[in-house]
Amino acid sequence: MKSPKGFLFAGISAGIKKSNKLDLGLVYSQDILNSVCFFTANTVKAAPLLNVMKKINQTKGQVKALLVNSGNANCFTGSQGIKDAEYLCKKVSSVSGAAQKHILPCSTGVIGKRLPVKKISSEVDRLFLALKKDYNLFAESILTTDKVKKVSSEKFKCGSKQVNILGVAKGAGMVHPQLKQATMLAFIFTDVLISKPLLTKAAKETVLNSFGSITIDGCTSTNDSVFVLTSGKAENKNINRQSSKEYKLFVNKLDKVCKDLAKKIVKDAEGSTKFIEVTVKRAKNKAQAKKAAFSVANSNLFKTAMYGENPNWGRIYQAIGQAGILVKDNVTVKTGSLKKKNIKLEIDLKSGKETYSVYTSDLTPEYVKINAEYS
Amino acid sequence: MKSPKGFLFAGISAGIKKSNKLDLGLVYSQDILNSVCFFTANTVKAAPLLNVMKKINQTKGQVKALLVNSGNANCFTGSQGIKDAEYLCKKVSSVSGAAQKHILPCSTGVIGKRLPVKKISSEVDRLFLALKKDYNLFAESILTTDKVKKVSSEKFKCGSKQVNILGVAKGAGMVHPQLKQATMLAFIFTDVLISKPLLTKAAKETVLNSFGSITIDGCTSTNDSVFVLTSGKAENKNINRQSSKEYKLFVNKLDKVCKDLAKKIVKDAEGSTKFIEVTVKRAKNKAQAKKAAFSVANSNLFKTAMYGENPNWGRIYQAIGQAGILVKDNVTVKTGSLKKKNIKLEIDLKSGKETYSVYTSDLTPEYVKINAEYS
Repeated sequence: MKSPKGFLFAGISAGIKKSNKLDLGLVYSQDILNSVCFFTANTVKAAPLLNVMKKINQTKGQVKALLVNSGNANCFTGSQGIKDAEYLCKKVSSVSGAAQKHILPCSTGVIGKRLPVKKISSEVDRLFLALKKDYNLFAESILTTDKVKKVSSEKFKCGSKQVNILGVAKGAGMVHPQLKQATMLAFIFTDVLISKPLLTKAAKETVLNSFGSITIDGCTSTNDSVFVLTSGKAENKNINRQSSKEYKLFVNKLDKVCKDLAKKIVKDAEGSTKFIEVTVKRAKNKAQAKKAAFSVANSNLFKTAMYGENPNWGRIYQAIGQAGILVKDNVTVKTGSLKKKNIKLEIDLKSGKETYSVYTSDLTPEYVKINAEYS
Repeated sequence: MKSPKGFLFAGISAGIKKSNKLDLGLVYSQDILNSVCFFTANTVKAAPLLNVMKKINQTKGQVKALLVNSGNANCFTGSQGIKDAEYLCKKVSSVSGAAQKHILPCSTGVIGKRLPVKKISSEVDRLFLALKKDYNLFAESILTTDKVKKVSSEKFKCGSKQVNILGVAKGAGMVHPQLKQATMLAFIFTDVLISKPLLTKAAKETVLNSFGSITIDGCTSTNDSVFVLTSGKAENKNINRQSSKEYKLFVNKLDKVCKDLAKKIVKDAEGSTKFIEVTVKRAKNKAQAKKAAFSVANSNLFKTAMYGENPNWGRIYQAIGQAGILVKDNVTVKTGSLKKKNIKLEIDLKSGKETYSVYTSDLTPEYVKINAEYS
């Protein structure tokens, strides 16, 4: 797949992780990018998030660089963490000449440990030298317990010009994005030329619905962030009408990238052996369908039954009832073989007309082992 | 320990469980017992609960017999389940001569399967022949995935008379009692002579606080019930003043039995290797302390860290933040060695004066295996 025009990427090993794996990433643009960002609803927000929220507010979303590290979340690190995040932005600024306010820090990993800023800072020159159009090393550098890179892309014609959308994300645990305007670590890059109001509208519609429909372990991270960044370098005719077919096409493609990335996160869930789509249909309203689907998708008893390929449907009724939803006697659960890796489960509440799907994984002994040891 | 006066107990194998373990229990009293009962807040309520709720309402809590089976929850069994529950009560009535309205059914086990009523019914005569003062076989007959019986008792002098309190309970999974007026399967028998209003008051105070402070897997059962039954046969001077030292003594002892049973349930949690007390102190108010404590106690990431004896405190801050509670930078977590079987964890929110403790277990590969296979 092709990178959208106007973006350069890098990923190197800076020694933050003990494993020597890639752990420092950079996205850079010569010209100002427009952005729409989403953050976790967890009241504990990591230092880089506070930094980004402030800057985005100040610059109305104008961005030139993203500095991303894995292996350390720079969260619950107090005022030192705040200083550390900006210290690194200052370093990026001095190397690139970009203003600090246009440089966004981003971290993922262990909570409660100070970021090794000296070590990271000393690698920023090398990081800039590594910049190129290829996004693969960047996609690798943001991973933690993930087994695979998560990349998704779409393209479409806008008049005679090709527009590219590229999404890059990481999982794989502490994933239950709670969307006020929040979700996990994901980056969407596009060269589309579009007005800011329409970019915001398109991003909200697609990001909240996709990343807002997944859960791995019911734990909402302190570092969840999604960045949607546009360079406008596709040179298409500016998209500035909501009713235009170009806008609809963009939303459709953006939605595909977001949903694909969201599913990829769940497919690479820590220790998982199953990818499960829980659909609640004929609910009274959307909120009820979503509540029921998440209550099932987050139930340890349901998730262990899926691991055991055990059709213990009683646990589904229990989970819906626990959510305070009236479960009629004629509620049904439909599914295919539980032996498969991909399982679709359909719960028919027979109470109304609304449907909602949530994507989740099974709970396995391997998940327990990974998280017993991780720190 | 001594059984309270006025109660007879039995437990036999009726072939409900495939394992030949005891699975049918009976508590019987020649004379009417007074009772206070608590049921699950799950909107999905098993057939026996609906039966009991109706009778308790009709008789104002007058009870002569409890028929309890394990191995099948008689839940999500529709109108057939309701008929089955009453069918068994009718059988107990015909054998004992007690009115059906004074006979309460109670079930625990797999959800969604019809109760084998013919099989159970044919064993009721034998069950009555097995009645005796010893409660041990009864305590065994109500277990499912429990490894040990859960019994607790207290006694005290009321004037010259000895009053006895005996508690019997079962766990060991799908345990997160949500208390409106609800909790898991527990029976408290006492021979105290006490007025109904004071019995109700004492039961509410003690039952809701004890069983309401435990969680094993965050899953609120469809069959949670607590029965507090009094025979009045201790012949003590009737306790009818809230300010009396006898009432205070009774509440104190009842509280001890309830708390002891609640802890025993968590100590026997499915697959667990740790018993964890999560105390949140200096919270703004009781509700905040409880919310924070439960959010930590139900977090899979926290529970796997405890299994791994891994001081990953970041997960504690994450869990409190997920509950929407403001976590100050100076919040502290105190604990002793994580190598021990019993772990006390103290989270100091430094925001106020209130404290709340929740009891939970660790999440282990064994828990996953048990629940992958159970049905």
